[in-house]
Amino acid sequence: MSKTKILASAQDVENAFYDALERADLELMMSIWADDEEIVCVHPGGPRLIGYVAIRDAWRKIFEHGNRLEIRILHLSKVTTPFAVMHSVLEEIRVRLKSDLMAPVAATNLYVRGAMGWRMVSHHASPVPPLPAEPANEPPKVLH
Amino acid sequence: MSKTKILASAQDVENAFYDALERADLELMMSIWADDEEIVCVHPGGPRLIGYVAIRDAWRKIFEHGNRLEIRILHLSKVTTPFAVMHSVLEEIRVRLKSDLMAPVAATNLYVRGAMGWRMVSHHASPVPPLPAEPANEPPKVLH
Repeated sequence: MSKTKILASAQDVENAFYDALERADLELMMSIWADDEEIVCVHPGGPRLIGYVAIRDAWRKIFEHGNRLEIRILHLSKVTTPFAVMHSVLEEIRVRLKSDLMAPVAATNLYVRGAMGWRMVSHHASPVPPLPAEPANEPPKVLH
Repeated sequence: MSKTKILASAQDVENAFYDALERADLELMMSIWADDEEIVCVHPGGPRLIGYVAIRDAWRKIFEHGNRLEIRILHLSKVTTPFAVMHSVLEEIRVRLKSDLMAPVAATNLYVRGAMGWRMVSHHASPVPPLPAEPANEPPKVLH
């Protein structure tokens, strides 16, 4: 995807963001961020990064040295306005070729509409306590 | 502040939010949130909370059982659109009557404009590594 591609919705940006994260594709990743000095990125446990250059540099290091990840997005909550959309998601993260899940991560993603369509302006991710087990994993209830 | 007070800007909402936090004032705190099922709050290390009822319940418990806090807001970065404004801040938190600082917290705050003015729709806070010492704290450089 080129940096000048028009992204038609916040959801398109989000899909490309997680696609880039799974593929460790720096060019794709940076094509979906607004080219702005005020954009913000907080990786789980990491410092707050401000601006396109700092954010690109951190993703470059993550992609160069990190494991390849598989990410499943759960429980979207969203707030929509004409020029800005927030998605709050839970990320279920697994290192590829390993079976254990990592701690779930809550991410607040903010997208803004500009001349070239929608772009990400903020990604704030932090670990949250493990989710309660799904009801299907509980022993069956006996009613009598 | 009543729930129907008009808040004229995102900054007014943010000021009232941190004022309510320092005062442990539940009514003031909940007056600045949008009354919406999609609003989101993540306290440092806590679960993601969705919706007005869950968020109110968590603040009630924090204010009933927690220490009184003093909070200094540092390094604001903001993104502004006509109906939504994001503030990214670092919170320097001190428990009142104690001198030690707690770990700094990065907070992403999102405000949306509605019929009653601006309201908070998302607060995502998580600990970040300690900030580097201010230049004034470093030994003076000797140039010759």
